[in-house]
Amino acid sequence: MSRSPGRKQENHKISRELFVLTYGALVAQLCKEYEKDEDVNACLDRMGYSIGVRLIDDFLARSAVKKCRSYSETADMIAQVAFKMYLGVTPSVSCNSVTGNEFSLILDKNPLVDFVEELPAERASLCYCNLLCGVIRGALEMVHLAAEVSFLQDRLKGDAVTEIGITFLRKPEDRRHRR
Amino acid sequence: MSRSPGRKQENHKISRELFVLTYGALVAQLCKEYEKDEDVNACLDRMGYSIGVRLIDDFLARSAVKKCRSYSETADMIAQVAFKMYLGVTPSVSCNSVTGNEFSLILDKNPLVDFVEELPAERASLCYCNLLCGVIRGALEMVHLAAEVSFLQDRLKGDAVTEIGITFLRKPEDRRHRR
Repeated sequence: MSRSPGRKQENHKISRELFVLTYGALVAQLCKEYEKDEDVNACLDRMGYSIGVRLIDDFLARSAVKKCRSYSETADMIAQVAFKMYLGVTPSVSCNSVTGNEFSLILDKNPLVDFVEELPAERASLCYCNLLCGVIRGALEMVHLAAEVSFLQDRLKGDAVTEIGITFLRKPEDRRHRR
Repeated sequence: MSRSPGRKQENHKISRELFVLTYGALVAQLCKEYEKDEDVNACLDRMGYSIGVRLIDDFLARSAVKKCRSYSETADMIAQVAFKMYLGVTPSVSCNSVTGNEFSLILDKNPLVDFVEELPAERASLCYCNLLCGVIRGALEMVHLAAEVSFLQDRLKGDAVTEIGITFLRKPEDRRHRR
């Protein structure tokens, strides 16, 4: 492809504020529709999944990254390339397990909650940004990596940071190899 | 304020694809919820209105524009500054009335429909991007300009361009002056 990277990059960017407010409208709409936070969370995750499934092609085309050789490389790629590209922030990554398949993406600042002060008391279990978990899960599945993705900490709920946990689910052949 | 404009600008940008897909998820959700296209359109307009009401402060702070002295200047400002800032595109503007209060923003390319091929047959009256009309209406109202904003043409419906019509509603004192 003979793209001019600088110009292409420019064309792909929009203002974050409009996105953040539109995302807020989406969450508010789901809160109107579903009484239980769990249902809103599940719906955001499903929507995110569908987005991730479509976004992965765009990501692979624009990032031109090579195949990752480990879960660790994959986690770094999500944080340093994907988050940077799509949200303009770079979470730090930590590995949470000796088996090497559990990682955390830690965000000091979550760009999606710019206009959100705190969750209403009656929405204490809402994972406001759960769409992101779905996006990561959907995108990973398209490169044949099954994963569970969920919020472990959330500044909106009073935690010191926002932390997204990614657990790569080992494939049957992995388990066989380990025996 | 002692902002570094370059850096601030950078921080405010995110990838358009994520926004476009998230917006698509919002519209799909509303289509699930409302059977009639008119209800989806009205809901998108209401959501957009609430967004515009909040976005105007961000716009005024970041653009540092001066007060517009005419409807024509206002229409140009929306097209050349606001659309550029928030969506990365600049519609052309035309004035549609001798009374000077009706304008069209004409988009050769609508960045919100990147992943949309065409509307389903049963959704022929859907104004897919109606959120934008609401945003413009809400933002204008916050600077004391009442306006009607709607799609006049839409490439998603087979039109050659996408055209947003803005009719500034004259204030009672304007009418008095004209008598």
